[in-house]
Amino acid sequence: MSVRRSDRLIDMTRYFLERPHTLVTLSFFAERYASAKSSISEDMAIIKRTFANRGTGRLETIPGAAGGALFIPTIKKGEASEIIEDLIQQLSTADRILPGGYLYMSDLLSDPTVLKRVGRLIASEYADEKVDAIMTVETKGIPIAQSVANYLGVPFIIVRHDSKITEGSTISVNYVSGSSAQIKKMELSKRSLKAGTRVLVVDDYMKGGGTLKGMQALITEFEAELIGTTVFAEGSFTGHRMIDNVTSLLSVDANSDEIRIQPGNYLDKVFEQAD
Amino acid sequence: MSVRRSDRLIDMTRYFLERPHTLVTLSFFAERYASAKSSISEDMAIIKRTFANRGTGRLETIPGAAGGALFIPTIKKGEASEIIEDLIQQLSTADRILPGGYLYMSDLLSDPTVLKRVGRLIASEYADEKVDAIMTVETKGIPIAQSVANYLGVPFIIVRHDSKITEGSTISVNYVSGSSAQIKKMELSKRSLKAGTRVLVVDDYMKGGGTLKGMQALITEFEAELIGTTVFAEGSFTGHRMIDNVTSLLSVDANSDEIRIQPGNYLDKVFEQAD
Repeated sequence: MSVRRSDRLIDMTRYFLERPHTLVTLSFFAERYASAKSSISEDMAIIKRTFANRGTGRLETIPGAAGGALFIPTIKKGEASEIIEDLIQQLSTADRILPGGYLYMSDLLSDPTVLKRVGRLIASEYADEKVDAIMTVETKGIPIAQSVANYLGVPFIIVRHDSKITEGSTISVNYVSGSSAQIKKMELSKRSLKAGTRVLVVDDYMKGGGTLKGMQALITEFEAELIGTTVFAEGSFTGHRMIDNVTSLLSVDANSDEIRIQPGNYLDKVFEQAD
Repeated sequence: MSVRRSDRLIDMTRYFLERPHTLVTLSFFAERYASAKSSISEDMAIIKRTFANRGTGRLETIPGAAGGALFIPTIKKGEASEIIEDLIQQLSTADRILPGGYLYMSDLLSDPTVLKRVGRLIASEYADEKVDAIMTVETKGIPIAQSVANYLGVPFIIVRHDSKITEGSTISVNYVSGSSAQIKKMELSKRSLKAGTRVLVVDDYMKGGGTLKGMQALITEFEAELIGTTVFAEGSFTGHRMIDNVTSLLSVDANSDEIRIQPGNYLDKVFEQAD
């Protein structure tokens, strides 16, 4: 017996949301619900309309009997702007200021609701690029990388500060930690990144950019390709940044007694054409 | 103008899936869709039925005009068993064996599809407990903790091996690393865990159980409460385990030349009453 439309819409919605950037065929759903492809095609049109109206993302439909659809999570400028304002509000409390002009933000970056929003923002920036993997360095970049990976439907890669026996052979690079001008080492398991992979680099915080520069060196070392670099927050830095063309959701000015948080360059970079 | 039923079902499904274990009121949806509460109530009944039929989880409806519903992700034994068999299959390839009887599994634990399944399995085990936070220790436990946190709708807490200035004051404990019998230190930011918090501990791999024991000591130190402990895989260990009552999805026998992977005690522990 074929499944009712209402039940199909609910189950298809879940199915698409769990598999962003993945083509699901008409045939698959037709068999799953014992329904005609023409009915499934109508269902997809309804889901597409609702996702568009609610700003959930695009459902890209591929026409024809061999066709199907894929869900591309996106965000509208208004919602993106609200999320960034909300992050600023939550971070702008006096009790977050730590000695040395640092900001306590670990609680936000381990809250699933916040991480979903951050992941959706970053994934939307690269929705139309071909990204094969997300790269970050341990520890605090990991939850951001995982959330972006969820929305782009690709794996993430964790660069380590020291080798673990459970990683097998590794390749390492040295890098200059910008804030302290120390030489450090970061390494990556040989089998975790193939030549030609298109990599998006994300991290929680950028000061001088040395860590990001190190990851770029690793990408070169592995003969992979850098697609872009986005950080949750960029801090103020006196001196020459080691890296250009980084997108930031937030900009933190820690040069004064008070910490001042403002929107980063995300909105301008992502929505420049829409204005 | 009120929103059509099909559009409401699609948007409500997304809304519930993004907020597990969170009550959403009839009033909220009634206003969002400019629809009568009675219609919303019917919508919820349809979603509840589909989620139950497809094994997505329970939609618990709270009756009355002030009521609403919350989505509790769960899993059926058959699907849980299939996921575990699939993990075993993926891990049982000769090229994963590393020197010293270790197993390379970083690729699986950074694949969003695998992580969602693992998170859903672990979250289902504690679906009827009151859990306030997930705890893990850096690095490889983090993606698992984040995925479980997503399905339980609570934050996660990352215990560190060494203090970072961006964490503020910390409390540390010493623990015995079971596999190497070394004394190590782990620490946690003071502000990241409040007294009385009900904590679920997760990790990627257990051998002697020393790391898990260390996290339990931290929970006691913070006057929080341990609700349970679940690991992705438990390895074979000769000697006395430092900890009891751990749930494992997989059991890895690395005492021979070949690595043998079998189901852990998860299915027995979680579905014992259903048999």
